[in-house]
Amino acid sequence: MENFNFYSPTEFVFGKGRENEAGTYVKKYGGTKVLIHYGGQSAKKSGLLDRVIASLDKEGVPYVELGGVQPNPRDTLVYKGIDLARTENIDFILAVGGGSVIDSAKAIAMGVPYEGDFWDFYSGKSAAKALPVGTVLTIAAAGSEGSGDSVITKEDGMLKRGASSPAIRPRFSVMNPELTMTLPPYQTACGATDIMAHVFERYFTNTKEVEITDRLCEAVLATMVRETPRVIADPANYEARANIMWAGTVAHTNVVGVGRDQDWNSHGIEHELSALYDCAHGAGLAVIMPAWMEFVYKHDVMRFCQMAVRVFGCNMNYDDPESTAVAGIKAFRRFLHDIGMPVNFTELGAKVEDIPVLVEKFGLGDGQTGGFVKLSSTDVAEIYKIAANAKL
Amino acid sequence: MENFNFYSPTEFVFGKGRENEAGTYVKKYGGTKVLIHYGGQSAKKSGLLDRVIASLDKEGVPYVELGGVQPNPRDTLVYKGIDLARTENIDFILAVGGGSVIDSAKAIAMGVPYEGDFWDFYSGKSAAKALPVGTVLTIAAAGSEGSGDSVITKEDGMLKRGASSPAIRPRFSVMNPELTMTLPPYQTACGATDIMAHVFERYFTNTKEVEITDRLCEAVLATMVRETPRVIADPANYEARANIMWAGTVAHTNVVGVGRDQDWNSHGIEHELSALYDCAHGAGLAVIMPAWMEFVYKHDVMRFCQMAVRVFGCNMNYDDPESTAVAGIKAFRRFLHDIGMPVNFTELGAKVEDIPVLVEKFGLGDGQTGGFVKLSSTDVAEIYKIAANAKL
Repeated sequence: MENFNFYSPTEFVFGKGRENEAGTYVKKYGGTKVLIHYGGQSAKKSGLLDRVIASLDKEGVPYVELGGVQPNPRDTLVYKGIDLARTENIDFILAVGGGSVIDSAKAIAMGVPYEGDFWDFYSGKSAAKALPVGTVLTIAAAGSEGSGDSVITKEDGMLKRGASSPAIRPRFSVMNPELTMTLPPYQTACGATDIMAHVFERYFTNTKEVEITDRLCEAVLATMVRETPRVIADPANYEARANIMWAGTVAHTNVVGVGRDQDWNSHGIEHELSALYDCAHGAGLAVIMPAWMEFVYKHDVMRFCQMAVRVFGCNMNYDDPESTAVAGIKAFRRFLHDIGMPVNFTELGAKVEDIPVLVEKFGLGDGQTGGFVKLSSTDVAEIYKIAANAKL
Repeated sequence: MENFNFYSPTEFVFGKGRENEAGTYVKKYGGTKVLIHYGGQSAKKSGLLDRVIASLDKEGVPYVELGGVQPNPRDTLVYKGIDLARTENIDFILAVGGGSVIDSAKAIAMGVPYEGDFWDFYSGKSAAKALPVGTVLTIAAAGSEGSGDSVITKEDGMLKRGASSPAIRPRFSVMNPELTMTLPPYQTACGATDIMAHVFERYFTNTKEVEITDRLCEAVLATMVRETPRVIADPANYEARANIMWAGTVAHTNVVGVGRDQDWNSHGIEHELSALYDCAHGAGLAVIMPAWMEFVYKHDVMRFCQMAVRVFGCNMNYDDPESTAVAGIKAFRRFLHDIGMPVNFTELGAKVEDIPVLVEKFGLGDGQTGGFVKLSSTDVAEIYKIAANAKL
């Protein structure tokens, strides 16, 4: 096991009706004037925003609103948010939404106390400070409610880039699984895919004998394999929604990933798809992750066997381990298809002829990237090709 | 899933040589004068205390020392620590040791700013504030390095009681698996048993469909089943020590136990054993937990089957599930025996004729206690009897 620090100070406020306590927690964590950040109209129409505002009113905490966060959240709105927050002397950002809204809120939080361009933090600089952020989560997916990460898309050129800093770990996150019941099945499935991808990026490692985190990763994955089809079949299944929501947080606070090399190539390769086509990140991952697995599995056949057996319940073929590894990847792709995810470029809405553009934007040049298997630009092109033509 | 809050703000500083950073973290978390609290001579002889002190010196942080914490830590030393801390204007308690030392440090931390008797916090009152506590952990067992709990024994009458408060969650915990390599095998096994017991207390629940926490519990348990025999056979196996150490923390921050009823009767029943005989808590649990399981398993045969299959690798007997449940309990007791733990009163050094005294001190009277199965005094006596006479 590698040396590590683990620090996850977010207070998770989980369960039915907990959004009515948002104001209490804003106050607890020092907010005296709040920017409520949200996405489209659904937060308004559902009455969620009204309940959150009522909870702020009850505590006597004033607020301003900034809606309009898009999936693959844009830098343009972040600049607007930074200006608004400065003008209004905001000292707390409350994100009401999914990963995109939370990531946008984190970007604003870093930008307000910073004299330079906030994009610096998405170009390698680490933010030393940020306004405190709280969240009311509406989609189980990105894990942003418990992470120190944020991904923003630069509209000019549609560059999708990430930032990390302990300063943007949310102070609290309200997580009511009921709020996810009205999501369209496609979005639910995208979220589930994202959660599983966060675990797989950690699971595929060259660090040896990390049994505890292996097992914790498998616990989250096995839960997703059981619970996702249940919520697709019955969107109002509270227990299944709750299991997925907590799984999504556990998947990304890093408690399941400490002390081991991690990969993260699939995320990088996917980001070019969602940046170019503005497709859902989870849908892009559904196409990329199994393709990446097919490209790299020979690097460590036994690790893929372990996944096949422990996560997807495959029988181990002791005479021919490689067949078990392949069966596990096939089971994963079949699972994704069954929950309504695309399995290839056509189903995703991507084009095989764009692969050179995707590889170019990935920007590896003559270099290499990745933790589990180092990939070159040629390798990345090959993975896009496998993804383009994948079948069940 | 039940509504819950989860808040675990401890910074875990994990890996080889990290004790040399203790001073840095004391300073980071605001300590300007430190009480170093420890147990016997091993911390001195091993050079650990010298390394910790050197790290404080490096940061220019003055300190006083208070050693002498015994297993089943006593109130008498806590009173001494409170006096010393007040006299010396201590503002940070640094525990260097295992669960007993950390629990004693937490008691002192609550007592210093409190005008009344600190024992109030072990009699039902919750502490609103406490001095900050940091730890340098030397035994993987109690999980106290990441919990808001403490257990202290009142010397007068040997009453063993617990306290809980968010105020005593350690600010940081240094966890170097190397420090556990010199533990005698018996103590290593006691620690492993305690870790597994912390999970079982959460695992046996009446809350339905809590798949994510079920799976996370099983992940920790399966890790312990694999790694404990490895460290008994090879005490210097760093990877196995590291897996057990992180498992011990994950087992008790409550990330694997949120949103579900928990039991904790086995801990209560055991506490009377370690209070009366001053035996190791883990050894007492090794005798009590399987006995408790035998007494209650009919309450939910399928849950015990799930444990048998997923944790101990038993084959499910679909014609006779009860036989699988029983096989799982037998496998657990066999595992405990194989790592060197006692399986009955004789091996523990307890006496069957003391059972009435144990039941009397347990103090249930005509009442009932427990989350999974409610127990009466008669039931508790029965569990002691099963434990007294248990065989492989």
